[in-house]
Amino acid sequence: MPKHTISALVENHFGVLSRVSGLFSARGFNIDSLAVGETEDPTISRMTIVVDADDRTLEQVKKQLNRLIDVIKVQEIPSEELLEREIVLVRVEFNHKNRAEILEAMNAVQGKVLDTSGNTLTIEVTGDQTKVHSVFELLKPYGILEIVRSGRIALSRKGKMSIKS
Amino acid sequence: MPKHTISALVENHFGVLSRVSGLFSARGFNIDSLAVGETEDPTISRMTIVVDADDRTLEQVKKQLNRLIDVIKVQEIPSEELLEREIVLVRVEFNHKNRAEILEAMNAVQGKVLDTSGNTLTIEVTGDQTKVHSVFELLKPYGILEIVRSGRIALSRKGKMSIKS
Repeated sequence: MPKHTISALVENHFGVLSRVSGLFSARGFNIDSLAVGETEDPTISRMTIVVDADDRTLEQVKKQLNRLIDVIKVQEIPSEELLEREIVLVRVEFNHKNRAEILEAMNAVQGKVLDTSGNTLTIEVTGDQTKVHSVFELLKPYGILEIVRSGRIALSRKGKMSIKS
Repeated sequence: MPKHTISALVENHFGVLSRVSGLFSARGFNIDSLAVGETEDPTISRMTIVVDADDRTLEQVKKQLNRLIDVIKVQEIPSEELLEREIVLVRVEFNHKNRAEILEAMNAVQGKVLDTSGNTLTIEVTGDQTKVHSVFELLKPYGILEIVRSGRIALSRKGKMSIKS
């Protein structure tokens, strides 16, 4: 099923996250990613939800979201307007033989080494989903020990959903 | 109140997010940030939760999390071991007078320009909370139109919580 990216402005308190995630799990909507953070107005948060859905289900999702208390505005971002990023921290093992090779590979994908402890490197990578997956493929052969991902965040190139509008 | 960073390995389905956020909102625990994403094992997700709490409340939070179905492992990351990052997209207005100035300021903080449309720039910034706030302060005078944030993700430098261990 096609992936759709929804951006929602919501009141900034945790009851909202509970209601939104509860809605999705109760209805069996298939969430691929959900991220939430404050906006330029600290009373308002912006949620980015990526959902696998056909057109009919997508309409349901948007309608149900709009009905929730504390949801201010809901927008689908069409793929041609999508600016999407995720941040990932990956810890890998290294040894004196492959260290230079790993650093070179990470340099090529603009990965930043955040920490070296013992025989492990912790690397920060940002990008769209294609980039993130290619970095995992690059690092797998060395032995990935830990991954933490933020989930996707997105804006529309056309900027149709500022708080003031 | 001091901020504490909790990393939790959970089963990868959205019922968990609903249960965790429901627990926090029902108990009135003060969440500062929550992020969730897949790990190296697609059946397991890692949640990063930043909570404002005194020691007693923090113990309660950890105990309640451990009791939830689908929560596999809960770890507090002490501040001296904390590797923490967030990704932020910011859209600002520019004009022919201040464009070079904005780009120079973003260069200094390693911000990447993702998009230029009309008279707006969309910038990607990653860093810890101090960095993120300093970028907002830098950009405020130009007119921030939109912000989307991922919430914080974190690993321990000591890597005590891989899935296999």
